[in-house]
Amino acid sequence: MSSKKVKTFRPKARVPKGLRDIPAREIRAMARMMRVIEQVYDSYGFEPLETSAFEYTDALGKFLPDLDRPNEGVFSFQDEDDQWLSLRYDLTAPLARYVAEHYDGLPKPFRRYQSGAVWRNEKPGPGRFRQFTQFDADTVGTPLVAADAEICMMAADCMERLGIPRGSYVMRVNNRKILDGVLETIGIAGDGDGFETQRMTVLRAIDKLDRLGPDGVRRLLGDGRKDESGDFTKGAGLDTSQSDRILAFVSAEGDDAKSVIAALRQIVAGSEIGIQGVDELEEMATLFEAAGYGTDRIRLDPSVVRGLGYYTGPVYEAELTFQAVNEDGELVRFGSVGGGGRYDGLVERFKGIVVPATGFSIGVSRLYSALDHLGKLDTGGVIEPVVVLVMDRERIADYQAMTSRLREAGIRAEMYLGGSGMKAQMKYADKRGAPCVIIQGGDEHASGEVTIKDLIEGSRLSKEIEDNEEWRSGRPAQVTVSLDSLVESVREILGRHSS
Amino acid sequence: MSSKKVKTFRPKARVPKGLRDIPAREIRAMARMMRVIEQVYDSYGFEPLETSAFEYTDALGKFLPDLDRPNEGVFSFQDEDDQWLSLRYDLTAPLARYVAEHYDGLPKPFRRYQSGAVWRNEKPGPGRFRQFTQFDADTVGTPLVAADAEICMMAADCMERLGIPRGSYVMRVNNRKILDGVLETIGIAGDGDGFETQRMTVLRAIDKLDRLGPDGVRRLLGDGRKDESGDFTKGAGLDTSQSDRILAFVSAEGDDAKSVIAALRQIVAGSEIGIQGVDELEEMATLFEAAGYGTDRIRLDPSVVRGLGYYTGPVYEAELTFQAVNEDGELVRFGSVGGGGRYDGLVERFKGIVVPATGFSIGVSRLYSALDHLGKLDTGGVIEPVVVLVMDRERIADYQAMTSRLREAGIRAEMYLGGSGMKAQMKYADKRGAPCVIIQGGDEHASGEVTIKDLIEGSRLSKEIEDNEEWRSGRPAQVTVSLDSLVESVREILGRHSS
Repeated sequence: MSSKKVKTFRPKARVPKGLRDIPAREIRAMARMMRVIEQVYDSYGFEPLETSAFEYTDALGKFLPDLDRPNEGVFSFQDEDDQWLSLRYDLTAPLARYVAEHYDGLPKPFRRYQSGAVWRNEKPGPGRFRQFTQFDADTVGTPLVAADAEICMMAADCMERLGIPRGSYVMRVNNRKILDGVLETIGIAGDGDGFETQRMTVLRAIDKLDRLGPDGVRRLLGDGRKDESGDFTKGAGLDTSQSDRILAFVSAEGDDAKSVIAALRQIVAGSEIGIQGVDELEEMATLFEAAGYGTDRIRLDPSVVRGLGYYTGPVYEAELTFQAVNEDGELVRFGSVGGGGRYDGLVERFKGIVVPATGFSIGVSRLYSALDHLGKLDTGGVIEPVVVLVMDRERIADYQAMTSRLREAGIRAEMYLGGSGMKAQMKYADKRGAPCVIIQGGDEHASGEVTIKDLIEGSRLSKEIEDNEEWRSGRPAQVTVSLDSLVESVREILGRHSS
Repeated sequence: MSSKKVKTFRPKARVPKGLRDIPAREIRAMARMMRVIEQVYDSYGFEPLETSAFEYTDALGKFLPDLDRPNEGVFSFQDEDDQWLSLRYDLTAPLARYVAEHYDGLPKPFRRYQSGAVWRNEKPGPGRFRQFTQFDADTVGTPLVAADAEICMMAADCMERLGIPRGSYVMRVNNRKILDGVLETIGIAGDGDGFETQRMTVLRAIDKLDRLGPDGVRRLLGDGRKDESGDFTKGAGLDTSQSDRILAFVSAEGDDAKSVIAALRQIVAGSEIGIQGVDELEEMATLFEAAGYGTDRIRLDPSVVRGLGYYTGPVYEAELTFQAVNEDGELVRFGSVGGGGRYDGLVERFKGIVVPATGFSIGVSRLYSALDHLGKLDTGGVIEPVVVLVMDRERIADYQAMTSRLREAGIRAEMYLGGSGMKAQMKYADKRGAPCVIIQGGDEHASGEVTIKDLIEGSRLSKEIEDNEEWRSGRPAQVTVSLDSLVESVREILGRHSS
């Protein structure tokens, strides 16, 4: 006797590492959040644009912040004609491609916004995904820092329109040319001079000021720093006087724009590029003041450098200043939810001519978490569907008709489509969060009636009433009405709960 | 003498083959269209879900319609741990993965909708892209055809809510079990019987009934068919009596559901599966009638088979019945904008248990084209921004302040941020479609005034007035007001154009 048994391959159902499924509540609240941002950007004259999920790898370029692995960090695959394609890792590189491709036909300046998923082939971690959403706004084709100032004000408007109170956020603004000036005065500036790695290490060190404080940054600027776990990070190798100047620069922050500017002027004295940076920062400060954006909304802060190498002028960051618990359980400043700056070189890659541009990118899930934390997510307005029970499978057309009637009256409604009895149906309605169920058994059918069971009221009552027997026999929160007044009665119950 | 010249690599700025950028007008109208669909699906108790752009290749499975190249058609890449990942080619396979992964926690049935991009690694053509958007609704976990009926009614509701008049669309409904019954009666049914390819050829032949007519289909069912260009398509190799029966089946369409059902009963007589299919179709017809969906909205049509192999019961298609010019310049029926059916096997791949499911997928760009053709796209409500000209670079803060004031009053406004003179600014405003521009030169500044130039009225007048000199000197459609009444005056002009 032989028994033939074919082993069937059963793939394991699992979402890929570092990716996730997004549930209904988050999708809805996120969509509302995105719409508010869109409205603000629209009001500033920005236009939406959508580019495709992947690009030719050579067009995308290699602008990821990770200096050590310039070829990694993206998901790539080869097309049938052997050209390499990569999933976009941000929305700026595709914009540069778009602008270069359509340069002559675009209005200049060209203001556009785009939101969408981006992908990074990086090691995932808690709260760190390989697919996430960005919301970008960029102005392309103008060298005026008025464009940068406009984006900073627009970002501040966004925060407030989303419900983040003034004082709980701040736009921090700096200019990379000032840093270049500082680097020049300490002798590590200039293209192709072999100082690139050192400069990048300095940038990263400054970026950590918030977390490590001046002492930690000083170590990273000098010989290096050993953290609590004993891991050693190599430093930039600057001497004390060099480090002093950089620390003076990044600490020149303050409430009074005029005195910040004056201090910066002194630090970069003698560096042409540095002075130009201070001039630009001063012009932006003037525009903020003229438009009524005080230092409670936008402030100059020389410690903002933004990690990316491609920024060439103003840089800015939206920081949320309230405290929240981080993933290690520590109470910390919520921190950055977006940032950006001027990048005059991205389109040049394609066209060989300088096309000045500036832009701001919101980390959408960070911002979402912040609003959630503040209780400012707009999750309202969704009433779960009324469930019409199927008491008699033969009469499913009747239940279908009731469901349709409710729906036509603008009430979210569904007929129970499962396979089992009363208990399973009630359990389903509970799981769905249904505000009420509609029941028409044989008796009700005979008398042209229908029973409406108010599940919200019922659950409240069942908590109040100790004696379960009493509650059951009393059948509270339940009403039997004529079929004709079904819609009216359901509306009454829903109205009671929404008010 | 040696001149050192480094040749810089300049990538060509081009969107990848078969992909495209989506312009502002389409993004906005599309978003409104999607919101209408969402509202309809919400009203039926469906919940939104978002899954990630790619999945493990083994979890995605190989359900693409292309039988000849089962391994192709998707974009795949390998993860760091060597597992293969693929961009999703539809939204059904990720749903099956999601349901299998979270089975115990889900309400049953589970109604979900999802919209998003999908990717196919296929040869692009006119109107045929490698990234496109689908909008799916599925009900998982119930074998009742009431679930299929519900989706058909929901799809019909969608069409009407989007503005497609009754009579210009129809939901066509069939059941694959009836076809299985027909195949049984002609002797080519049964799993693992070696008839798979033949059955697939029959499915594809039936799918072409609309385009080729009964004669063309008869050839494809028989020896094969040579088209106008001389290309030969191999047929299914059926004999005349077999073909007759299939043609009788697909032609059993009609206005009266009862007689269609009766005809189908006769055709599948003797086949258990066929009779079951007819019973199911009859039950759906009863539900449509009970809910008031007449044959002007939903009709039984045995020629609907849907190409995909995985359907196991009811199949349905949303067809637009009006005429439109196709890409070859011919006037044809607009055709299908979506379709779906019951697929009881997809979750089974993972779990080994049958999880019945049914779903409908809208081809979003087809539907968008249809609404565009009918003039039913909601593109309204977008007023292009008012442009504040920069007449004096030194006074940019003043112009910024005017722009902010307009914006705070709810008027879309932008300050000109380009680099050139008056002519370039006016050209820019024209290109942006600005309704008016705000001008404050030295004279206006001195007198505390501002000039508003109505570009829409101006363009109308310039068409009317022959004598250009006269028009210029007359300065029509232009008004100078006190700075205080800027907002009020702009509002008046916008109001005039919107009414």
